[in-house]
Amino acid sequence: MSLSFFELSAGRWFSQRTSHHLAFKQQEGGKSNLTIEVLAKDHPEVVKLCQHYEVDPTQALCGARVSWDGTMEWDEEKHAGSTVLVPVADSLQALEGQLLREMGYAEKAPVAGRYLINQEELILITEYETMYSKERLWFESPNVRLRHSILKRFGGFSMASFCSEIRMGVTQPKANTPEAADATNSG
Amino acid sequence: MSLSFFELSAGRWFSQRTSHHLAFKQQEGGKSNLTIEVLAKDHPEVVKLCQHYEVDPTQALCGARVSWDGTMEWDEEKHAGSTVLVPVADSLQALEGQLLREMGYAEKAPVAGRYLINQEELILITEYETMYSKERLWFESPNVRLRHSILKRFGGFSMASFCSEIRMGVTQPKANTPEAADATNSG
Repeated sequence: MSLSFFELSAGRWFSQRTSHHLAFKQQEGGKSNLTIEVLAKDHPEVVKLCQHYEVDPTQALCGARVSWDGTMEWDEEKHAGSTVLVPVADSLQALEGQLLREMGYAEKAPVAGRYLINQEELILITEYETMYSKERLWFESPNVRLRHSILKRFGGFSMASFCSEIRMGVTQPKANTPEAADATNSG
Repeated sequence: MSLSFFELSAGRWFSQRTSHHLAFKQQEGGKSNLTIEVLAKDHPEVVKLCQHYEVDPTQALCGARVSWDGTMEWDEEKHAGSTVLVPVADSLQALEGQLLREMGYAEKAPVAGRYLINQEELILITEYETMYSKERLWFESPNVRLRHSILKRFGGFSMASFCSEIRMGVTQPKANTPEAADATNSG
Protein backbone atom coordinates (compact mmCIF):
# COMPACT_ATOMS: atom_id res chain seq x y z
CA MET A 1 0.00 0.00 0.00
CA SER A 2 2.73 2.39 0.97
CA LEU A 3 4.75 0.93 -1.85
CA SER A 4 1.99 1.84 -4.28
CA PHE A 5 1.79 5.39 -2.92
CA PHE A 6 5.47 5.80 -3.74
CA GLU A 7 4.94 4.26 -7.14
CA LEU A 8 2.08 6.66 -7.89
CA SER A 9 4.35 9.51 -6.82
CA ALA A 10 7.21 8.59 -9.14
CA GLY A 11 7.95 11.19 -11.78
CA ARG A 12 8.47 14.91 -12.17
CA TRP A 13 6.15 17.39 -10.51
CA PHE A 14 5.66 21.12 -10.45
CA SER A 15 4.96 21.99 -6.84
CA GLN A 16 3.46 25.16 -5.39
CA ARG A 17 3.92 25.54 -1.68
CA THR A 18 2.44 28.01 0.76
CA SER A 19 3.32 28.26 4.41
CA HIS A 20 0.99 30.05 6.79
CA HIS A 21 2.85 31.27 9.83
CA LEU A 22 0.07 31.10 12.38
CA ALA A 23 1.56 33.24 15.11
CA PHE A 24 2.86 35.93 12.75
CA LYS A 25 -0.28 35.90 10.56
CA GLN A 26 1.90 35.92 7.48
CA GLN A 27 2.13 33.63 4.52
CA GLU A 28 4.97 32.75 2.23
CA GLY A 29 4.78 31.11 -1.17
CA GLY A 30 7.25 28.99 -3.05
CA LYS A 31 7.64 27.02 -6.23
CA SER A 32 9.69 23.97 -6.88
CA ASN A 33 10.39 21.27 -9.38
CA LEU A 34 10.22 17.92 -7.68
CA THR A 35 11.55 14.60 -8.91
CA ILE A 36 10.58 11.38 -7.19
CA GLU A 37 12.32 8.17 -8.06
CA VAL A 38 11.45 4.77 -6.60
CA LEU A 39 14.43 2.73 -5.44
CA ALA A 40 14.48 -1.05 -5.04
CA LYS A 41 14.99 -2.26 -1.51
CA ASP A 42 18.40 -3.63 -2.42
CA HIS A 43 19.54 -0.27 -3.79
CA PRO A 44 22.83 0.74 -2.08
CA GLU A 45 21.31 3.94 -0.69
CA VAL A 46 18.36 2.06 0.81
CA VAL A 47 20.67 -0.51 2.36
CA LYS A 48 22.91 2.24 3.73
CA LEU A 49 20.01 4.10 5.34
CA CYS A 50 18.65 0.88 6.88
CA GLN A 51 22.09 0.14 8.31
CA HIS A 52 22.27 3.64 9.76
CA TYR A 53 19.02 2.99 11.65
CA GLU A 54 19.97 -0.62 12.41
CA VAL A 55 17.01 -1.98 10.45
CA ASP A 56 17.26 -5.18 8.41
CA PRO A 57 17.17 -3.93 4.77
CA THR A 58 14.99 -6.88 3.73
CA GLN A 59 12.24 -5.38 5.92
CA ALA A 60 12.17 -2.20 3.81
CA LEU A 61 9.18 -1.92 1.46
CA CYS A 62 11.14 0.12 -1.06
CA GLY A 63 12.93 3.42 -1.15
CA ALA A 64 12.36 6.77 -2.77
CA ARG A 65 14.74 9.51 -3.72
CA VAL A 66 13.08 12.93 -3.64
CA SER A 67 14.91 15.85 -5.24
CA TRP A 68 13.74 19.45 -5.32
CA ASP A 69 14.86 22.68 -6.86
CA GLY A 70 12.90 25.81 -6.16
CA THR A 71 12.54 29.21 -4.57
CA MET A 72 10.66 30.67 -1.64
CA GLU A 73 9.40 34.26 -1.62
CA TRP A 74 11.11 35.62 1.47
CA ASP A 75 14.61 34.82 0.42
CA GLU A 76 15.43 34.75 -3.23
CA GLU A 77 17.88 31.94 -2.76
CA LYS A 78 17.58 28.67 -4.57
CA HIS A 79 16.42 25.81 -2.41
CA ALA A 80 17.74 22.61 -3.88
CA GLY A 81 18.43 19.28 -2.31
CA SER A 82 17.52 15.67 -2.19
CA THR A 83 16.77 13.03 0.38
CA VAL A 84 16.14 9.30 0.50
CA LEU A 85 13.07 7.90 2.25
CA VAL A 86 12.58 4.27 3.25
CA PRO A 87 9.28 2.98 4.68
CA VAL A 88 9.56 -0.08 6.93
CA ALA A 89 6.19 -1.61 7.81
CA ASP A 90 5.60 -2.72 11.40
CA SER A 91 4.58 -6.13 10.07
CA LEU A 92 3.84 -7.76 6.76
CA GLN A 93 0.20 -6.61 6.61
CA ALA A 94 0.57 -3.37 8.57
CA LEU A 95 -0.53 -0.08 7.05
CA GLU A 96 1.91 1.73 9.26
CA GLY A 97 5.52 1.68 10.21
CA GLN A 98 8.75 3.59 10.45
CA LEU A 99 9.79 6.09 7.84
CA LEU A 100 13.54 6.35 7.67
CA ARG A 101 14.90 9.45 6.06
CA GLU A 102 18.27 10.73 5.20
CA MET A 103 17.46 14.28 6.25
CA GLY A 104 14.58 15.62 8.34
CA TYR A 105 12.30 18.23 6.79
CA ALA A 106 12.72 20.70 9.60
CA GLU A 107 16.11 19.83 11.00
CA LYS A 108 19.05 18.63 9.01
CA ALA A 109 19.88 15.58 11.08
CA PRO A 110 18.77 12.07 10.14
CA VAL A 111 15.49 11.34 11.84
CA ALA A 112 13.05 8.43 11.69
CA GLY A 113 9.38 9.23 11.59
CA ARG A 114 6.21 7.20 11.40
CA TYR A 115 3.97 6.72 8.38
CA LEU A 116 0.48 5.41 8.15
CA ILE A 117 -2.03 4.89 5.41
CA ASN A 118 -5.55 6.04 6.18
CA GLN A 119 -8.24 5.98 3.50
CA GLU A 120 -5.97 6.65 0.52
CA GLU A 121 -3.98 9.24 2.46
CA LEU A 122 -0.38 8.86 3.45
CA ILE A 123 0.26 10.42 6.85
CA LEU A 124 3.80 11.17 7.99
CA ILE A 125 4.57 12.05 11.57
CA THR A 126 7.96 13.22 12.70
CA GLU A 127 8.86 14.16 16.23
CA TYR A 128 11.97 16.13 16.91
CA GLU A 129 13.14 17.25 20.31
CA THR A 130 11.14 20.48 20.39
CA MET A 131 9.10 20.01 17.25
CA TYR A 132 6.30 17.82 15.91
CA SER A 133 5.20 17.67 12.30
CA LYS A 134 2.29 15.88 10.70
CA GLU A 135 1.97 15.75 6.94
CA ARG A 136 -0.93 14.34 4.89
CA LEU A 137 -0.49 13.50 1.22
CA TRP A 138 -3.19 12.41 -1.18
CA PHE A 139 -3.96 12.23 -4.87
CA GLU A 140 -6.90 14.09 -6.36
CA SER A 141 -6.08 12.29 -9.60
CA PRO A 142 -3.00 10.42 -10.86
CA ASN A 143 -1.56 13.75 -11.99
CA VAL A 144 -2.60 16.03 -9.12
CA ARG A 145 -1.04 15.36 -5.72
CA LEU A 146 -1.80 17.48 -2.67
CA ARG A 147 0.01 17.77 0.63
CA HIS A 148 -0.80 19.46 3.87
CA SER A 149 1.39 19.73 6.90
CA ILE A 150 1.26 21.28 10.31
CA LEU A 151 4.16 22.03 12.58
CA LYS A 152 4.18 22.39 16.34
CA ARG A 153 7.04 23.90 18.24
CA PHE A 154 7.25 23.66 22.00
CA GLY A 155 3.67 22.33 22.06
CA GLY A 156 2.13 25.20 20.03
CA PHE A 157 1.01 25.18 16.41
CA SER A 158 3.40 27.43 14.56
CA MET A 159 2.96 26.75 10.86
CA ALA A 160 0.50 25.17 8.44
CA SER A 161 1.67 24.45 4.90
CA PHE A 162 -0.03 23.36 1.76
CA CYS A 163 1.42 22.05 -1.50
CA SER A 164 -0.33 21.43 -4.78
CA GLU A 165 1.63 19.36 -7.23
CA ILE A 166 0.90 18.73 -10.87
CA ARG A 167 2.68 16.12 -12.90
CA MET A 168 5.04 17.58 -15.50
CA GLY A 169 5.30 16.42 -19.04
CA VAL A 170 1.74 15.18 -19.39
CA THR A 171 0.64 16.28 -22.82
CA GLN A 172 -2.12 13.82 -23.63
CA PRO A 173 -5.05 13.27 -21.33
CA LYS A 174 -5.00 9.71 -20.04
CA ALA A 175 -8.24 7.77 -20.41
CA ASN A 176 -9.44 8.41 -16.87
CA THR A 177 -7.66 11.63 -16.04
CA PRO A 178 -8.54 14.42 -18.43
CA GLU A 179 -8.49 16.87 -15.54
CA ALA A 180 -4.82 16.55 -14.70
CA ALA A 181 -3.65 17.03 -18.23
CA ASP A 182 -5.97 19.97 -18.38
CA ALA A 183 -4.33 21.57 -15.36
CA THR A 184 -0.91 21.03 -16.87
CA ASN A 185 -1.65 22.25 -20.32
CA SER A 186 -4.05 25.10 -20.24
CA GLY A 187 -1.72 27.56 -18.46
CA MET B 1 -22.53 15.40 14.32
CA SER B 2 -22.81 18.10 11.71
CA LEU B 3 -24.54 20.20 14.34
CA SER B 4 -21.53 19.81 16.59
CA PHE B 5 -19.15 20.78 13.79
CA PHE B 6 -21.05 24.04 13.44
CA GLU B 7 -21.03 24.52 17.19
CA LEU B 8 -17.27 24.01 17.32
CA SER B 9 -16.95 26.56 14.51
CA ALA B 10 -18.93 29.26 16.25
CA GLY B 11 -16.95 32.37 17.06
CA ARG B 12 -14.51 34.81 15.49
CA TRP B 13 -11.58 33.58 13.43
CA PHE B 14 -8.59 35.05 11.71
CA SER B 15 -8.34 33.25 8.40
CA GLN B 16 -5.40 33.07 6.00
CA ARG B 17 -6.29 31.80 2.56
CA THR B 18 -4.10 30.80 -0.35
CA SER B 19 -5.34 29.81 -3.77
CA HIS B 20 -3.08 27.87 -6.09
CA HIS B 21 -4.11 28.38 -9.69
CA LEU B 22 -3.00 25.06 -11.11
CA ALA B 23 -3.07 25.88 -14.79
CA PHE B 24 -1.44 29.30 -14.39
CA LYS B 25 1.07 28.08 -11.79
CA GLN B 26 0.39 31.14 -9.70
CA GLN B 27 -0.71 31.59 -6.16
CA GLU B 28 -2.68 34.29 -4.44
CA GLY B 29 -2.96 34.97 -0.72
CA GLY B 30 -5.66 36.59 1.31
CA LYS B 31 -6.62 37.40 4.85
CA SER B 32 -10.00 37.66 6.38
CA ASN B 33 -11.82 38.02 9.64
CA LEU B 34 -14.52 35.42 9.85
CA THR B 35 -17.50 35.30 12.19
CA ILE B 36 -19.57 32.15 12.49
CA GLU B 37 -22.84 32.22 14.36
CA VAL B 38 -25.04 29.18 14.97
CA LEU B 39 -28.73 29.78 14.28
CA ALA B 40 -31.57 27.72 15.76
CA LYS B 41 -33.59 25.80 13.22
CA ASP B 42 -36.60 28.00 13.87
CA HIS B 43 -34.60 31.16 13.17
CA PRO B 44 -36.42 33.22 10.50
CA GLU B 45 -33.45 33.06 8.09
CA VAL B 46 -33.22 29.27 8.42
CA VAL B 47 -36.94 28.92 7.81
CA LYS B 48 -36.75 31.26 4.82
CA LEU B 49 -33.87 29.33 3.23
CA CYS B 50 -35.67 26.00 3.76
CA GLN B 51 -38.78 27.41 2.13
CA HIS B 52 -36.72 28.61 -0.83
CA TYR B 53 -35.49 25.03 -1.37
CA GLU B 54 -38.90 23.55 -0.50
CA VAL B 55 -37.50 21.68 2.50
CA ASP B 56 -39.49 21.24 5.70
CA PRO B 57 -37.70 23.53 8.21
CA THR B 58 -38.15 20.98 11.01
CA GLN B 59 -35.77 18.70 9.07
CA ALA B 60 -32.94 21.24 9.34
CA LEU B 61 -30.24 20.35 11.88
CA CYS B 62 -29.49 23.98 12.57
CA GLY B 63 -28.25 26.98 10.65
CA ALA B 64 -25.08 29.02 10.57
CA ARG B 65 -24.44 32.57 9.51
CA VAL B 66 -20.92 33.04 8.17
CA SER B 67 -19.63 36.59 7.70
CA TRP B 68 -16.27 37.58 6.31
CA ASP B 69 -14.31 40.76 5.82
CA GLY B 70 -10.93 40.58 4.18
CA THR B 71 -8.61 41.24 1.28
CA MET B 72 -7.01 39.22 -1.50
CA GLU B 73 -3.61 40.10 -2.95
CA TRP B 74 -4.47 40.54 -6.60
CA ASP B 75 -7.10 43.17 -6.13
CA GLU B 76 -6.82 45.47 -3.18
CA GLU B 77 -10.58 45.61 -2.80
CA LYS B 78 -12.31 44.62 0.38
CA HIS B 79 -14.11 41.32 0.17
CA ALA B 80 -16.94 41.37 2.66
CA GLY B 81 -20.15 39.46 2.77
CA SER B 82 -22.19 36.92 4.60
CA THR B 83 -24.18 33.83 3.87
CA VAL B 84 -26.49 31.45 5.70
CA LEU B 85 -25.90 27.69 5.61
CA VAL B 86 -28.42 25.04 6.60
CA PRO B 87 -27.53 21.33 6.78
CA VAL B 88 -30.43 18.94 6.27
CA ALA B 89 -29.54 15.30 7.04
CA ASP B 90 -30.79 12.60 4.66
CA SER B 91 -32.27 10.82 7.65
CA LEU B 92 -32.19 11.06 11.41
CA GLN B 93 -28.96 9.07 11.80
CA ALA B 94 -27.31 10.01 8.53
CA LEU B 95 -23.86 11.59 8.48
CA GLU B 96 -24.67 13.20 5.17
CA GLY B 97 -27.29 15.33 3.57
CA GLN B 98 -28.08 18.50 1.71
CA LEU B 99 -26.35 21.74 2.50
CA LEU B 100 -28.58 24.66 1.66
CA ARG B 101 -26.83 27.96 1.21
CA GLU B 102 -27.93 31.45 0.54
CA MET B 103 -25.08 32.14 -1.84
CA GLY B 104 -22.69 29.72 -3.58
CA TYR B 105 -18.97 30.12 -3.00
CA ALA B 106 -18.13 30.33 -6.66
CA GLU B 107 -21.30 31.66 -8.21
CA LYS B 108 -23.61 34.14 -6.64
CA ALA B 109 -26.86 32.23 -7.10
CA PRO B 110 -28.43 30.12 -4.37
CA VAL B 111 -27.22 26.57 -4.73
CA ALA B 112 -27.69 23.42 -2.65
CA GLY B 113 -24.69 21.22 -2.11
CA ARG B 114 -24.03 18.01 -0.23
CA TYR B 115 -22.23 17.62 3.06
CA LEU B 116 -20.83 14.56 4.70
CA ILE B 117 -18.93 13.80 7.85
CA ASN B 118 -15.99 11.46 7.45
CA GLN B 119 -13.66 10.78 10.36
CA GLU B 120 -13.97 14.18 12.05
CA GLU B 121 -13.83 15.98 8.71
CA LEU B 122 -16.70 17.91 7.22
CA ILE B 123 -16.76 17.53 3.44
CA LEU B 124 -18.81 19.90 1.30
CA ILE B 125 -19.51 19.18 -2.34
CA THR B 126 -21.14 21.68 -4.63
CA GLU B 127 -21.86 21.10 -8.27
CA TYR B 128 -22.62 24.01 -10.53
CA GLU B 129 -23.34 23.80 -14.21
CA THR B 130 -19.73 23.93 -15.37
CA MET B 131 -18.03 23.70 -12.00
CA TYR B 132 -17.47 21.24 -9.18
CA SER B 133 -16.03 22.10 -5.81
CA LYS B 134 -15.05 19.87 -2.89
CA GLU B 135 -14.07 21.36 0.41
CA ARG B 136 -12.72 19.56 3.49
CA LEU B 137 -12.76 21.20 6.91
CA TRP B 138 -11.23 19.87 10.08
CA PHE B 139 -10.00 21.00 13.47
CA GLU B 140 -6.41 20.51 14.52
CA SER B 141 -7.50 21.76 17.93
CA PRO B 142 -10.55 23.65 19.20
CA ASN B 143 -8.84 26.90 18.21
CA VAL B 144 -7.19 25.92 14.92
CA ARG B 145 -9.46 25.07 12.01
CA LEU B 146 -8.14 24.13 8.57
CA ARG B 147 -9.88 23.98 5.23
CA HIS B 148 -8.87 22.69 1.87
CA SER B 149 -10.82 22.95 -1.34
CA ILE B 150 -10.40 21.99 -4.94
CA LEU B 151 -12.28 23.39 -7.89
CA LYS B 152 -12.90 21.78 -11.24
CA ARG B 153 -14.10 23.72 -14.23
CA PHE B 154 -15.29 21.95 -17.35
CA GLY B 155 -13.95 18.67 -15.93
CA GLY B 156 -10.40 19.94 -15.25
CA PHE B 157 -8.82 20.86 -11.92
CA SER B 158 -8.34 24.59 -11.98
CA MET B 159 -7.69 25.70 -8.43
CA ALA B 160 -6.66 24.30 -5.04
CA SER B 161 -7.14 26.47 -1.97
CA PHE B 162 -6.08 26.20 1.60
CA CYS B 163 -7.20 28.16 4.66
CA SER B 164 -5.76 28.15 8.13
CA GLU B 165 -7.95 29.71 10.76
CA ILE B 166 -7.10 30.61 14.30
CA ARG B 167 -9.67 31.59 16.87
CA MET B 168 -9.56 35.24 17.82
CA GLY B 169 -9.77 36.56 21.31
CA VAL B 170 -8.24 33.56 23.02
CA THR B 171 -5.97 34.97 25.68
CA GLN B 172 -5.77 32.14 28.17
CA PRO B 173 -4.70 28.67 27.18
CA LYS B 174 -7.58 26.27 27.75
CA ALA B 175 -6.77 23.14 29.72
CA ASN B 176 -6.35 20.94 26.66
CA THR B 177 -5.38 23.46 24.04
CA PRO B 178 -2.25 25.36 24.93
CA GLU B 179 -1.24 25.26 21.28
CA ALA B 180 -4.07 27.39 19.95
CA ALA B 181 -3.61 30.14 22.45
CA ASP B 182 0.06 29.96 21.68
CA ALA B 183 -0.56 30.48 17.97
CA THR B 184 -2.81 33.43 18.69
CA ASN B 185 -0.63 35.16 21.20
CA SER B 186 2.96 34.75 20.31
CA GLY B 187 2.86 36.84 17.12
